[in-house]
Amino acid sequence: MIEESLEIRKLRIGLAQINATVGDFAGNTKKIQKTIKEGKSLGIDILTFPELAICGYPPEDLLFKTNFISENQRSVRKIVDSSSGIDIIVGFVDSSKDIYNAAAVIHDGKLVGVYRKIYLPNYGIFDEKRYFRTGSECPIYIIGGVGVGINICEDIWYEDGPTRKQIDSGAEIIINISASPYHFGKGKIREKMLSNRAVNNTSIIAFNNLVGGQDELVFDGNSLIVDHQGQLLTRGRQFEEDLLVADLDVAAVRRARLDHCRWEKWLPSSKDKQCPNTKVVISKLPLGSIKPLLPRRELKLRKLNAEIYDALVLGTHDYIVKNGFSKVVIGLSGGIDSSLVSTVAVDALGNKNVIGVSMPLRYSSAGGISDARSLARNLGIRLITISIEKAFQAYLEMLADTFRETKPDVTEENIQARIRGNILMALSNKFGWLVLTTGNKSEMATGYTTLYGDMAGGFAVIKDVPKTMVYQLVKYRNTVASKQIVPISVIKRAPSAELRPEQQDINSLPAYDLLDPILTAYVEEDRSLEQIIASGIDEDVARQVIRLVDASEYKRRQSPPGLKITPKAFGRDRRMPITNRFKG
Amino acid sequence: MIEESLEIRKLRIGLAQINATVGDFAGNTKKIQKTIKEGKSLGIDILTFPELAICGYPPEDLLFKTNFISENQRSVRKIVDSSSGIDIIVGFVDSSKDIYNAAAVIHDGKLVGVYRKIYLPNYGIFDEKRYFRTGSECPIYIIGGVGVGINICEDIWYEDGPTRKQIDSGAEIIINISASPYHFGKGKIREKMLSNRAVNNTSIIAFNNLVGGQDELVFDGNSLIVDHQGQLLTRGRQFEEDLLVADLDVAAVRRARLDHCRWEKWLPSSKDKQCPNTKVVISKLPLGSIKPLLPRRELKLRKLNAEIYDALVLGTHDYIVKNGFSKVVIGLSGGIDSSLVSTVAVDALGNKNVIGVSMPLRYSSAGGISDARSLARNLGIRLITISIEKAFQAYLEMLADTFRETKPDVTEENIQARIRGNILMALSNKFGWLVLTTGNKSEMATGYTTLYGDMAGGFAVIKDVPKTMVYQLVKYRNTVASKQIVPISVIKRAPSAELRPEQQDINSLPAYDLLDPILTAYVEEDRSLEQIIASGIDEDVARQVIRLVDASEYKRRQSPPGLKITPKAFGRDRRMPITNRFKG
Repeated sequence: MIEESLEIRKLRIGLAQINATVGDFAGNTKKIQKTIKEGKSLGIDILTFPELAICGYPPEDLLFKTNFISENQRSVRKIVDSSSGIDIIVGFVDSSKDIYNAAAVIHDGKLVGVYRKIYLPNYGIFDEKRYFRTGSECPIYIIGGVGVGINICEDIWYEDGPTRKQIDSGAEIIINISASPYHFGKGKIREKMLSNRAVNNTSIIAFNNLVGGQDELVFDGNSLIVDHQGQLLTRGRQFEEDLLVADLDVAAVRRARLDHCRWEKWLPSSKDKQCPNTKVVISKLPLGSIKPLLPRRELKLRKLNAEIYDALVLGTHDYIVKNGFSKVVIGLSGGIDSSLVSTVAVDALGNKNVIGVSMPLRYSSAGGISDARSLARNLGIRLITISIEKAFQAYLEMLADTFRETKPDVTEENIQARIRGNILMALSNKFGWLVLTTGNKSEMATGYTTLYGDMAGGFAVIKDVPKTMVYQLVKYRNTVASKQIVPISVIKRAPSAELRPEQQDINSLPAYDLLDPILTAYVEEDRSLEQIIASGIDEDVARQVIRLVDASEYKRRQSPPGLKITPKAFGRDRRMPITNRFKG
Repeated sequence: MIEESLEIRKLRIGLAQINATVGDFAGNTKKIQKTIKEGKSLGIDILTFPELAICGYPPEDLLFKTNFISENQRSVRKIVDSSSGIDIIVGFVDSSKDIYNAAAVIHDGKLVGVYRKIYLPNYGIFDEKRYFRTGSECPIYIIGGVGVGINICEDIWYEDGPTRKQIDSGAEIIINISASPYHFGKGKIREKMLSNRAVNNTSIIAFNNLVGGQDELVFDGNSLIVDHQGQLLTRGRQFEEDLLVADLDVAAVRRARLDHCRWEKWLPSSKDKQCPNTKVVISKLPLGSIKPLLPRRELKLRKLNAEIYDALVLGTHDYIVKNGFSKVVIGLSGGIDSSLVSTVAVDALGNKNVIGVSMPLRYSSAGGISDARSLARNLGIRLITISIEKAFQAYLEMLADTFRETKPDVTEENIQARIRGNILMALSNKFGWLVLTTGNKSEMATGYTTLYGDMAGGFAVIKDVPKTMVYQLVKYRNTVASKQIVPISVIKRAPSAELRPEQQDINSLPAYDLLDPILTAYVEEDRSLEQIIASGIDEDVARQVIRLVDASEYKRRQSPPGLKITPKAFGRDRRMPITNRFKG
């Protein structure tokens, strides 16, 4: 049993914040093995990896493939074989009759235990109850004489969940491996929760999060360790891979628990009824020379805009690169949306890999055309200019007979947008460039966008960024650069789709600083019309916005994937029927 | 307590197989009230309605809106107020702290009980654990002296589920209200299961299913009542609204149980521990004159093709009409797919509401053009012809500079398909016609289709119909018609996209009768490459097909909704990541 001394040595923990790719067993395993090697050279006792690090997160319906599960098991065996002289905690799919979201506990060349996730999230973007059976056991492991509780992601969000049981069984350190996706401000929420959990349990908490983009999700990293007083010991990089190393002062945990006159309560007991299956692992790691703490990786508190911008860059980079593309093409109107998408793309891929296309027509403003040119020059990207007059004229002639006795309307506007979509897709098909679309969340919400037109493309970078935030992000990007990247005239020009003479967004939609808060209330907070009106919004405006949002569900259903950066994005985060007669 | 006589009167039950619309509280409530009136005039004792009949199924994230829940409760009150002199069972969302998928038990103007669904499906197309809390109680109700157990959909699929508990508490009739979606052959599976359940429990089972289309789902009706020997008493219409009425011979159930020497076991007991909350409702309906059984509604066993075809017609009709459209437009190539979609559309909406568009180009075959004309004539639909040469020429000129030094490839083919998509969408925008797309499941699976081209449209009628089944359905439709609707030359011509000279599907894909079984194995049954090869398929072919399916996920993500008719459709039935390095 555990060495009941207060003067226990420090335990060196390493949190490997890796960027795993879904289904890439060879690549993920190699990355894990490389990190194990590094961990050993750093004298790490316990090295941890994120939730489902072996197969990537979320694997979705790949989990129904038996060979996906067996490949995952083969990877675990490879990792076990690489673990001599070190303890490893790594997320994988455990399989026995049913499958579990699990953590493998590996000690010096042996798989000594498996923890199965108990709280399976099945809300928001999560569908874990579709796949996994619920775990039922909360073992603790004694590693180098220290009680360690291991749990997975959602498990730690519940005060009375597995963490509490593991603490009651004698855990002094809680290791939580996660794949916790980003939305703005989530890092702070997580840190506060983890700090509370540490203080309330007089326990060290080590939180190891995934990093990287996977389809519409970005995992932000931000792994961290807090001591038993809730103080941050170290935090991993945001939106980058990282290896956090810390020597944990478990003696301080014990002293604090003694001071609280609760020492006995915390002692692990084999009789504990709440957790009958406590397991004991004696670490065989040498207790020899402990190196000083690695320099704590400081992360300055970045501004919200920087955080969101970085999320867009990482998510865009990973979608493109993980899907085997290297270059992207973007329609440049000289407007603010395509400008932001261009800067994100250049920051993600480098300016040699971004191609802008200007596709002017009779209604395009001279300002827009010249701004697109300036932007391309400022970013150092190639700009292709293709007038779409010829095609537009051809469509009008082809449809003249069928359209006689009708008046020009939104139809002719959409034809233009779809010609541009066709041109961009032709460039994509011919040269293998992925098309980035430029629609923002305010447009996606209200349907102020053309299906198969400006919505045509492989990835919708700012799909979840409200228009008012688009402005903030462009200003932020200009501030960060030593020079002005996005021309000031782009920021100052009144928003317009430029699909008919004198067109301005304001003629079709409420002003964006009025629109966006209504959208947040209706889309993200599920407020009713009545509640929105009660908050001081004009009834007609509120009704118009709600009507537009409801009527545009069919468009959103056909939109390309794009990055979630708000608490509720369109897509699997908000699953609305198209056929729906409910109003407001 | 219950009248312990064997010679109890017969209980007249009515199963209202209605077509509810999601979110249409006013419409659904009106329909329910109208049926109640009819039920009273027919002397019905217990009138039942499908699962979530009040709000429609599946309501998806509308359930997160508090005003959606309260509207639903207002509807329940209206139905309670309409229930004098009759017992009603109707599906609604029960709300108390959390929400439940529930059945209201209404007796003569009072809500006397609520059953909360226990088995919440969270697989396939279902996400019920995202929304509902699990029920825990299995009451039975004594109605007119008869023990009645009520449960909901999935609940009855488990032998040891609520049905067993209700039987143990004394239920002689089990009423199951459902929203069980269609796939081919499901009606038979359901009937067999219900018949087994009846026999094993010596109980009458009344199964009341929803009917109608909701986005990608079709509910097939097929409500039915089986007696305690598993014999079918009556079955509701397939794909149509219906009201099934039967006088249930509960005395026969009691005699059979006595014969089994198990009479005592079946007697309801207030001391029953498994079901402590048995409730008693004494029906106040007069025991007077019982009318003879209404003529049992016979439904001939239709052939599989007829069943699938009818599912497509109902689902297409409901998507269009429930979304406020009346007319549709279809691009007619003279091929088999657009021919099938046209006959379905005409059968769903009538020939005045279907417009065909022929959009020939240099590569279009004379046969295809003339077949499109014949089809339109046979169906009596309007045909618009618009040559797309002008636009195609315009694109080639616009792109000439950028494309110099490149050779023609799939790019130019896709441009043509996207011109056609743009024309159809222009007609849609100008005249308010919904575009029906014509891609089949084999194409959707392999990506043999153009995003924003032939994939552009509001509804993908045959998205889940494999190509080999497309042929069968066209032949079936021709057989049913007194005349040949789809020209025989359409069926005989080798499949081609006609986007380049001499193009045939067979040059890009395996023959469809080879391809379709591989797709079934890989997509619907999650078989691995190894398993498929082991079944006798050539390895190269299997590898090619799997590669195509995996690589086309991004296209499918942007496809319009379409009807599920197989056990596993693309879409929410099969949730695959786009970013995915897993092979096979």
